[in-house]
Amino acid sequence: MYISHPKCYQVALYMIPVIPPCDPTADDRLYHICITVISLVVMLILAVLARRMKVGDRQKGLPGLLSPVNFLDHTQHKGLAVAVFGVLLCKLWGLLISPNPLPFTTDTVNKRENWVILGVFFYPALYYPLLACGTLHNKVGYVLGSLLSWTHFGVLVWQIIDCPKTPVIHKHYSLFSSLPQIACLAFLSFQYPLLLFKGLKGTEKNNATEDLSSSYYRDYVKKMLNKKKSTKISTSSTDKPKLPQRITDAVKSYIYTPEDAFRFPLKLAISGVVSFITLYQMGLLLISAVVPSLQTARLGVNEDVANLLAGFRIMLSPDKHEVVRIVVYYMWCVEVCYISAMTLSGLVNLAMLMRSMVLHRSNLKGLYRGDSYNVYNCQRNIRASRPALVCWMGYTSFTAAHICIGMIIQTIVFFLCLLIAVFLVIIPVLHRQNLILFQVLWSMWPFWLMLLLVVLIQHVIARFCFIKKTGGTRDLDNRGNLFLLTYLMFPVNVLIGVILGIWRMIITALFNIVHMGRMDISLLNRNVEAFDPAYRCYAHYLKIEVSQSHPVMKAFCGMLLQSVGQDTKAGQRSQDAEEGIQLVQQDKKQNKVSIAKRARRHWQLLYTLVNNPSLVGTRKHFQRQTADSFLNGSLNRSTREESKKEATTKEAEAAASN
Amino acid sequence: MYISHPKCYQVALYMIPVIPPCDPTADDRLYHICITVISLVVMLILAVLARRMKVGDRQKGLPGLLSPVNFLDHTQHKGLAVAVFGVLLCKLWGLLISPNPLPFTTDTVNKRENWVILGVFFYPALYYPLLACGTLHNKVGYVLGSLLSWTHFGVLVWQIIDCPKTPVIHKHYSLFSSLPQIACLAFLSFQYPLLLFKGLKGTEKNNATEDLSSSYYRDYVKKMLNKKKSTKISTSSTDKPKLPQRITDAVKSYIYTPEDAFRFPLKLAISGVVSFITLYQMGLLLISAVVPSLQTARLGVNEDVANLLAGFRIMLSPDKHEVVRIVVYYMWCVEVCYISAMTLSGLVNLAMLMRSMVLHRSNLKGLYRGDSYNVYNCQRNIRASRPALVCWMGYTSFTAAHICIGMIIQTIVFFLCLLIAVFLVIIPVLHRQNLILFQVLWSMWPFWLMLLLVVLIQHVIARFCFIKKTGGTRDLDNRGNLFLLTYLMFPVNVLIGVILGIWRMIITALFNIVHMGRMDISLLNRNVEAFDPAYRCYAHYLKIEVSQSHPVMKAFCGMLLQSVGQDTKAGQRSQDAEEGIQLVQQDKKQNKVSIAKRARRHWQLLYTLVNNPSLVGTRKHFQRQTADSFLNGSLNRSTREESKKEATTKEAEAAASN
Repeated sequence: MYISHPKCYQVALYMIPVIPPCDPTADDRLYHICITVISLVVMLILAVLARRMKVGDRQKGLPGLLSPVNFLDHTQHKGLAVAVFGVLLCKLWGLLISPNPLPFTTDTVNKRENWVILGVFFYPALYYPLLACGTLHNKVGYVLGSLLSWTHFGVLVWQIIDCPKTPVIHKHYSLFSSLPQIACLAFLSFQYPLLLFKGLKGTEKNNATEDLSSSYYRDYVKKMLNKKKSTKISTSSTDKPKLPQRITDAVKSYIYTPEDAFRFPLKLAISGVVSFITLYQMGLLLISAVVPSLQTARLGVNEDVANLLAGFRIMLSPDKHEVVRIVVYYMWCVEVCYISAMTLSGLVNLAMLMRSMVLHRSNLKGLYRGDSYNVYNCQRNIRASRPALVCWMGYTSFTAAHICIGMIIQTIVFFLCLLIAVFLVIIPVLHRQNLILFQVLWSMWPFWLMLLLVVLIQHVIARFCFIKKTGGTRDLDNRGNLFLLTYLMFPVNVLIGVILGIWRMIITALFNIVHMGRMDISLLNRNVEAFDPAYRCYAHYLKIEVSQSHPVMKAFCGMLLQSVGQDTKAGQRSQDAEEGIQLVQQDKKQNKVSIAKRARRHWQLLYTLVNNPSLVGTRKHFQRQTADSFLNGSLNRSTREESKKEATTKEAEAAASN
Repeated sequence: MYISHPKCYQVALYMIPVIPPCDPTADDRLYHICITVISLVVMLILAVLARRMKVGDRQKGLPGLLSPVNFLDHTQHKGLAVAVFGVLLCKLWGLLISPNPLPFTTDTVNKRENWVILGVFFYPALYYPLLACGTLHNKVGYVLGSLLSWTHFGVLVWQIIDCPKTPVIHKHYSLFSSLPQIACLAFLSFQYPLLLFKGLKGTEKNNATEDLSSSYYRDYVKKMLNKKKSTKISTSSTDKPKLPQRITDAVKSYIYTPEDAFRFPLKLAISGVVSFITLYQMGLLLISAVVPSLQTARLGVNEDVANLLAGFRIMLSPDKHEVVRIVVYYMWCVEVCYISAMTLSGLVNLAMLMRSMVLHRSNLKGLYRGDSYNVYNCQRNIRASRPALVCWMGYTSFTAAHICIGMIIQTIVFFLCLLIAVFLVIIPVLHRQNLILFQVLWSMWPFWLMLLLVVLIQHVIARFCFIKKTGGTRDLDNRGNLFLLTYLMFPVNVLIGVILGIWRMIITALFNIVHMGRMDISLLNRNVEAFDPAYRCYAHYLKIEVSQSHPVMKAFCGMLLQSVGQDTKAGQRSQDAEEGIQLVQQDKKQNKVSIAKRARRHWQLLYTLVNNPSLVGTRKHFQRQTADSFLNGSLNRSTREESKKEATTKEAEAAASN
């Protein structure tokens, strides 16, 4: 308000130390051009290398180079991918905030949005080599990766040291904003040499090809088979938990504790880290965009404020110094409210992030078990489809965006609530004046007393007069008096209903605002859940994740690859993990199946289907489609997969029982 | 804004025709005192009458007089109770609005809220005789009821004709506000003579005692048994409905069509009418409190407005007449927006009311079937309890209160939305000027185009490149390219996610605001549904309703009373309907049960439990409690009830098959 007064404004302006635009020694434009060229060269070298390696041991080559991340993987070392996504997110953030999104031109004012659009596609390409260098599992790749990440890291740190203060938003904003980026690049600069070192020593695990043969999936199956018995016993013993138990359970459900028998898919891990970085960046932006100007305004308050307020006929005090003191105090309160609101919003989102991870795990486990009713609240087909795939692709990005929006809304709402609480409750109580709210409430005391008494009386009478316990069960008693009371209390209950309605409004709004940033729950009623776009996206995401990376299926594929390798022994060891499933189809005709074996497989199939109800849907479908071929004795792919899977679980069971 | 200008305000004041306080010939104070005395006398006469009738034919007497409404009844003629509740609601409305809530004193300013509190308890008592007169099913009662309702009706109409205009809120407000009250009283004035006439002719049905022997419950059981077969066939034939079918289904689910085989419990019928009256009263209040003052303000605009606006440096036009024309036009727009918002809110609530009735019916039917999982989304014990009873008592009132709050919020939100739409979209488009919103959107066209293209491309590529159909099922294809695209689209998808998040916010807020007035759905996520106080109340209400007035149970009780009547023949015909269930316990020892009969009953019990899974919970409990007595051959009450019930259903089945 007072900022509009010219004198005050001048004072406020004097207080802001003007930060000159800083040109780092490592010019951003030059750096971008150089690093683009370097990245291109690195990609070319990698391509040549990939082409040469294709004829060699591994079936990788260029296609492998073009898909450096396997998002459907549980066992991959997640560091590289997560770090690159973190860097990319920070860059996107800088792109949207900085006045010069892509430093190739000096023309910052015109067509800024066009440069943003270009940048949105440029940066993923720029950081692509950082991912690709690790794909080939080759020493040259690691060396290139190390050099590239060192370059990125070194130049960024150099620029930050050169120009720690920038005029954008707040002098230290760019420094703090680039911290996650520095951390991610530092991780990459450390990880690539480590991989190189391991590669030289020969201890490096070949992640991509080792995915299916990793012991994780087999361990998962073993744990699952073990667990079933123990949980059955525990559920029967705990019939109805008591209140303290339920509270601790509720608190525990917000704390994520890693489990040995479960690893997140890569995409969820990335989403988690991306969410965390978004939370940090958003918090930083919310603080640095508002608090410094509030502080400057507070420091600029002088006696002109009294005149200004007098112009609006507001007399805080006859003494001008006193007025200044009061105004400064009120502004400090506003500042405290804002910072508290922001902190609260950050903490809430952090708790929600943890809770989401717990829920992701239980949802994934539930869907692995085929328990789709509990997760989706309806029977759904867990199968790849167009919308599901689009949602799967965008899931990580959408989480980040939702946390941004959630934090903005939360901060605004919490800020308003805190302002109301401070200026209508806390300050009046502390100073014993302007107790408007309390006076209003106090003047209505007969009304509140009546409502309270009526509610109490209804509860007491309901308990002692209208409910009788006969034979251990409860039944109604004194129906006549119950009906009479219901009729007489009708008007009072309308008034109680108004309070209930207001409470409903508050609790609904608060719940939805607090959970705004979470995609894993729907904010709508259970019958229209799917209209919530975020939840719809999450449901679709889970579909793809479960249908494509079911650990039991992966365990089976791993076993199959191993057994195929043992059978044929020669020349076929070099199957790629990704192609393992397709391979099953190809060597269909190689093995002739005897009738006895087929009979056994039919039994195994039955057993599998009974134990894995989630497969039945797919199975039925196949049965209808390929009934003839099945009858002719040529087992189709699905049948074989399932029977093999059964073999795996049997083996796992045997291993577990030993 | 301009109202604050003194001259304009004076002009506006001149436009309001001052309404003198009107004193009707039938003075309100005198009328209240008289009618209170008359009501007391009527109650005394009724009490004497009841005491004399108790020794006579029916077991009613004073207890019957004290519970004139059986809220747990489906078959009762609902008119009397509904009308009295309607009158009571209108009186409560007047109590809260009028400056003189109870016309016993002339002191209107001091202690108004105390009079309100008194009134809240006084009016139910005042209108109580109107209900009680119908309870005894006696000619004298009907005569008294007719006289009383005529008095109420006559005095109200007289007062309205005397003083059609009152100074409260709007000159015609009190006239329109009392219309529902007049309608209800007119209904009562017509109904009592009708009942008297029927009583004289001897064709009157004795509602209360006839409840259990009414054919409705038996019809319900028959219909239920018939239906099961037909629905089974229809569900199997319609596997997946198509889009037009689904749309018509959705529309149909908002249209309530009465069913022969189902009647609402009295409490729900009252709630429906009370909701409708609340809707009318709230709409009337919202219109008459705001629109007249807007109109007066619009008519009072003169050329001073131009000066006033110039003071705020707003120059709409150089010509003052033109300025007046523009301001009047804008104010007219605001008025139209407000009326539209109010109408929209009313229509929305009307649709919600219809939808609620459809849902109530399906919920009740579901719970009768024991399908508590579908209704509550979890397994619940359908048994009377203290909170359930309190919620049941308040349910009707809470519905009314929630509709009030819902309408206020809806009107405000719709009004703001319409204002934005009119002043940022419609008026600029019509006048081809101030197209700010469109200019902003247009300047960002590359951005929108990019987002649209990216979404389209993702969908098209997902459909044609990444999903392949093999053997009738869909699977992922080209995983490498899919992962690459996912990585490259990460930053763009964040931007798409922001739009998705905003859309989520809008749709969530809109859904919750539209459904604010409905108690039968929770506004919260499915896992925390019970935190929504309104839904919690509804769930509890359903519990009591189902546990106490299950039609199959009532059909059984009716059969039992009939058979007891046939067995003992003499003297016991006068059992009260309410006491029917307790009677079963009393004459336990009268009938000796042979072993063969007992064996048959065991079988019948088993059959009943299989067909009525909702009974199993209660059954198990009883079994544990009374295992010994059961073994000793003395069948406890629950077992007998169930076996008898089975007999009823068997009979019904037989009747249905004939």
